[in-house]
Amino acid sequence: MPSRQNLPLHSPAVSPAMPSSATMPLFARTPHLGEGSEAGFRNRIRDYFTSTFDRYESLFECLANEAAYYVKPIALRHPLIFYYGHTATFFVNKLLLTRMITARVNQRFESMFAVGVDEMSWDDLNDAHYEWPTPAEVKGYRDEVRALVLDLIEHAPLELPVTWSNPWWAIVMGIEHERIHLETSSVLIRQHKLEYVKHSSHWLPCTQSGTAPVNTLVKVAEGDVLLDKNKTDCWYGWDNEYGVHETCVSAFNTSRFLVSNQEFLDFVNAGGYLNHHNWEDEGKAWLTFTGARHPTFWVKKTRGWYLRLMTEEVAMPWDWPVEVNYHEAKAFCNWKKSETGLPVRLPTEDEWYRIYDESGLQAPQQTLANANIHLDHFASSCPVNRFAHGDFYDVAGNVWQWTETPVYPFDGFDVHPIYDDFTTPTFDERHNLIKGGSWISCGNEAQRSARYAFRRHFFQHAGFRYVVSEEVQSVPASHYETDKLLSEYAEFHYGDECFGVANFSKALVDLALTALANKPLQRALDIGCATGRASFELAKAFDHVTGIDFSARFIQLGAQLARGETLRYTLAEEGELVSYKSRSLQELALIDTAQKVEFFQGDACNLKEQFSGYDFILAANLIDRLYSPEKFLQQIHQRLNLGGILMIASPYTWLAEHTPREAWLGGFKKDGESFTTLDGLHHYLDAHYKRIAEPREVPFVIRETRRKFQHTLSEVTLWERIA
Amino acid sequence: MPSRQNLPLHSPAVSPAMPSSATMPLFARTPHLGEGSEAGFRNRIRDYFTSTFDRYESLFECLANEAAYYVKPIALRHPLIFYYGHTATFFVNKLLLTRMITARVNQRFESMFAVGVDEMSWDDLNDAHYEWPTPAEVKGYRDEVRALVLDLIEHAPLELPVTWSNPWWAIVMGIEHERIHLETSSVLIRQHKLEYVKHSSHWLPCTQSGTAPVNTLVKVAEGDVLLDKNKTDCWYGWDNEYGVHETCVSAFNTSRFLVSNQEFLDFVNAGGYLNHHNWEDEGKAWLTFTGARHPTFWVKKTRGWYLRLMTEEVAMPWDWPVEVNYHEAKAFCNWKKSETGLPVRLPTEDEWYRIYDESGLQAPQQTLANANIHLDHFASSCPVNRFAHGDFYDVAGNVWQWTETPVYPFDGFDVHPIYDDFTTPTFDERHNLIKGGSWISCGNEAQRSARYAFRRHFFQHAGFRYVVSEEVQSVPASHYETDKLLSEYAEFHYGDECFGVANFSKALVDLALTALANKPLQRALDIGCATGRASFELAKAFDHVTGIDFSARFIQLGAQLARGETLRYTLAEEGELVSYKSRSLQELALIDTAQKVEFFQGDACNLKEQFSGYDFILAANLIDRLYSPEKFLQQIHQRLNLGGILMIASPYTWLAEHTPREAWLGGFKKDGESFTTLDGLHHYLDAHYKRIAEPREVPFVIRETRRKFQHTLSEVTLWERIA
Repeated sequence: MPSRQNLPLHSPAVSPAMPSSATMPLFARTPHLGEGSEAGFRNRIRDYFTSTFDRYESLFECLANEAAYYVKPIALRHPLIFYYGHTATFFVNKLLLTRMITARVNQRFESMFAVGVDEMSWDDLNDAHYEWPTPAEVKGYRDEVRALVLDLIEHAPLELPVTWSNPWWAIVMGIEHERIHLETSSVLIRQHKLEYVKHSSHWLPCTQSGTAPVNTLVKVAEGDVLLDKNKTDCWYGWDNEYGVHETCVSAFNTSRFLVSNQEFLDFVNAGGYLNHHNWEDEGKAWLTFTGARHPTFWVKKTRGWYLRLMTEEVAMPWDWPVEVNYHEAKAFCNWKKSETGLPVRLPTEDEWYRIYDESGLQAPQQTLANANIHLDHFASSCPVNRFAHGDFYDVAGNVWQWTETPVYPFDGFDVHPIYDDFTTPTFDERHNLIKGGSWISCGNEAQRSARYAFRRHFFQHAGFRYVVSEEVQSVPASHYETDKLLSEYAEFHYGDECFGVANFSKALVDLALTALANKPLQRALDIGCATGRASFELAKAFDHVTGIDFSARFIQLGAQLARGETLRYTLAEEGELVSYKSRSLQELALIDTAQKVEFFQGDACNLKEQFSGYDFILAANLIDRLYSPEKFLQQIHQRLNLGGILMIASPYTWLAEHTPREAWLGGFKKDGESFTTLDGLHHYLDAHYKRIAEPREVPFVIRETRRKFQHTLSEVTLWERIA
Repeated sequence: MPSRQNLPLHSPAVSPAMPSSATMPLFARTPHLGEGSEAGFRNRIRDYFTSTFDRYESLFECLANEAAYYVKPIALRHPLIFYYGHTATFFVNKLLLTRMITARVNQRFESMFAVGVDEMSWDDLNDAHYEWPTPAEVKGYRDEVRALVLDLIEHAPLELPVTWSNPWWAIVMGIEHERIHLETSSVLIRQHKLEYVKHSSHWLPCTQSGTAPVNTLVKVAEGDVLLDKNKTDCWYGWDNEYGVHETCVSAFNTSRFLVSNQEFLDFVNAGGYLNHHNWEDEGKAWLTFTGARHPTFWVKKTRGWYLRLMTEEVAMPWDWPVEVNYHEAKAFCNWKKSETGLPVRLPTEDEWYRIYDESGLQAPQQTLANANIHLDHFASSCPVNRFAHGDFYDVAGNVWQWTETPVYPFDGFDVHPIYDDFTTPTFDERHNLIKGGSWISCGNEAQRSARYAFRRHFFQHAGFRYVVSEEVQSVPASHYETDKLLSEYAEFHYGDECFGVANFSKALVDLALTALANKPLQRALDIGCATGRASFELAKAFDHVTGIDFSARFIQLGAQLARGETLRYTLAEEGELVSYKSRSLQELALIDTAQKVEFFQGDACNLKEQFSGYDFILAANLIDRLYSPEKFLQQIHQRLNLGGILMIASPYTWLAEHTPREAWLGGFKKDGESFTTLDGLHHYLDAHYKRIAEPREVPFVIRETRRKFQHTLSEVTLWERIA
């Protein structure tokens, strides 16, 4: 591996962000990953890599001294020395995973520099765990990684295009990852005390400022939004961008400009930070905890308001966009709403796409962007009325724009195999999307499709525009069910076949429908429906299906599907490792059944009056989980029409934890002879039913981990009500 | 169904047991079940049934009043009213099981009369559970059952021969069952107080008695014993008679006569019941608990010793055989031993066969028996020197003879599907065989092959003869492993395939042997061998195999097989119902490997020095059950020869209950990336091994119940030691 020690730290390719940069090469754009020759591709990726790697290192020029590397700018984040090494280690880890390399570069450094962007716990940040190396040592390590990656870019086997499952994806992912950290590290530097930062000629802020324009509303017509990125797409994307999202957005009004410091000052002066009533609950808690009185980068001096930039404080540029977290933006909207009587709020993610699509904007091309983005202009914000996009300003660039929308997966979402925790930990309805990018957002970050999300109290170079709309936005479901039992059942009902065993619910319903030939198919009851698959399958034939289960948690999953939502759950793989899975009725060709199925919580041994008049009742894997199977069997005929059929399927796995020993239907010696559960069923059912056909065993498989399964045979009997 | 109310209670076919009976028809012998015409067979079975049913009813003539039906003769048994109904109910239950009938005769009676011969618990005998019917009601019920059975005998479809799996087996079983109760009820009547019994002209005891002959020893030469009854045999047998038993018995001496009351009196007079030192431990406990001072049917009156017969007490007939339980018989032998210095003991079951075979005796034929058996002569014992059989007397008949042998299953033993608890509950080494039959032993009981066993403290019409032999008898293994985990593993290793998945141990060894081609095959280690199947499989190729497991209980099963014994275990079927299973190395064609395998208890994380120098080490389903897999992996190369192979198979099912979370090899995020167990294996093994070939998954299935299985994939990796 050639030593890179002698490479100039800042190569001529670097385009420092400064107003005069128009004459300099642009900071490389995220490349198309399929076009042109192999050699052309290698060149393109090399440029993209080196420009990124260099630019990232140049950021650390803004640190004034060694202490700046080791003192944490904010408590919940690593010191900057970590981030200096982290982006290099990331390359190594991902290259190992796609097997482009087989050995580590520096085991010790790679253990130190591996973890930590969002949501770190206190334990992860225990300083005692680390004995940080010097910046020079880390630089040496970075040089080794740089050489390694350049060697791969030059020599590794390559098959174009490079898409989602190509091993080279790891290289592009490493570059895009470093671009994210270019931005987040710039925020940390901005949060550092002034004594730790210094001026750098490569990071020059905008010097222009003035009086802010008066904000006005612009109408956005009703329109469709479409996002549709698939795994063969030739532009790099993070996992959450993939899949299909299509919706129609009602007309709304939006502010022409981002909210400026000027506009926000009214809120501050109106006691916005003192009167808690404009704040949402979570915002109130944040406000109480931090005692904030104004935006975090605002500095109040005796001579007036100043604004903290990356390496300096400047007299408040009132026409620049205010930078706040979600809570502050939301409180402003609520205040504005009470002031104006208008339904002011933040835009949803979809409303932002509508604004973007209406504005005619495009992602940065190979010319200087008409937006304060991608380091094309400044190492800071600039006036909100500088970059017009159609009827709007700053649709993208300047600062990120908070939305009302917590990040959620599109239909068809899948984690990337080498980075399964990029988005999934944020599917908790506590991470809101920011859109549009800031002055330092580069590469993928500058795309319309980019979907970054942060906790609502987090600070980035982020502000907001507001909308006026009566439309109440619903929060898309993003939760992944992680409860072991629920997710096992979700997979059992809606997931993949194991060992070639057909879906159990479907197999039962197929059997039932054969037995029901020429019988009425109006109403069916699926008692003990669990997560409801059989209810939907029954609704293919029946006009109405009632699904009842004792567990409200089970039913919620079925109800979620019935609402047309996607069911998401994790699957245990090995130890604590999980995979992510989603299913919808659409995929299963069951969407047409949704409106015929109703789910209720209920007790099979004590059913409410309303559940009666059924032509068919299914009790699948139920009787050996009841506290009193006798009660169930003795009463259930009252709910079944004469001539109707009761289907019982059970492995007869009697366990004292579910059914007291004395309540078992069978599986013991009675009067000296083996008394099976089938004997017990006859005992309780023969008065009202005729058993039709011989019992048969239908197999089912419940997946516990990637390698461990319960494989069970359920005995199926059919009972026709005759009395 | 024709009413049987008008049938005479005692039909002319009944042959009362009395000395003058020589001119009366003999009590029907157990019939051949295959020969002759269908009509002839129906006649034969009808006679066998009616004579038995009648004779059983005639026994109750000996009861003096209604109270005699309801007062328990002994605390641990039902009152006689139960037994009066029980033999009829038994027919119904077994006929239902073979589907010769489909409905019960009397649900309430059949619930009352179903259970209870041996070893009842206090709960079963709770009087509150029963409201006994009157004897007349039971007689009415018996008549119904009689008519039912006769109707079947006349009209049911019949296919000859009637053997083990023929539905008609239920009828023959019912008859033989009633004959057993003929004897056991006669014992209960004998145990009743005199006020409850009365003389019956159909049950006349022997009136002959005198001075007992002096007992002498007769030599029995060394000889073979063979029992070999299979399921196509045309003579009825109980389950424990089936299978093969073949052995050679060393020469021994045995008493010419059964021990008479006279001979036993010496022991009583010598303080035999007062000095506990001649009693075995269990016998001592019985003696202390009961405070017995003499045989149970002996009555001490002021005018001397009397003997209780069925319905009267008579002056002690000193030349009749003494009737005792095993403990008393054994104490007598021990006393005799200390008196004579000779190795006196009871005969083993096999020694009894040798005596029988030498005596030239045959089971009762169609002429009057030359033995006090089958009710051919008396309703009591008779002098011990009345019936000579070759050099011996009373080889069969008069009273049963206790043996030293606890009942155990022959090779090939199987429970009968309609009576799975006839013998199995007695396979506990606490039930000793009695042989030879008594004066009332009829049908199957009178056969050489009959194998009845009772708890050692139990009383029947049973006494003993003794043998003198230095031969120490070993107790054949009879225990069925019922521990859930052990029996599941026994089946997993030695049982049947489920879902077409090949035997796991065998599959692993096959893979190993392919990898070991051209390598030395001297010594193999099976670490975590459990019940040892892979050890035996390895021994097909290796000269020596060591099997080590942490669980001594697992190893015992393997060691038992290695000794050539049969492994017996129960399989959970449904609820508490079980089936019975046995396996031997012979059946599995592994018997030749037995002497090459050694089992040890040991800790895989802390192996003793001696276990080293292996060419191959197998760790199957081990690593995720260790408390420190790291210790195991870091040390195991010391036990493997250079060039040798370590095979690791595991589903990587990490559970905190076996392995503390911090000791897992993988299955978690490490430095931000998924760290699999395979990564962990490389981490610990790469210093000493080269992994050969790609990992592959080998499935295995563990059966939990008839319908519930664990179906698991074990990842197999092979590691060649290189350093």
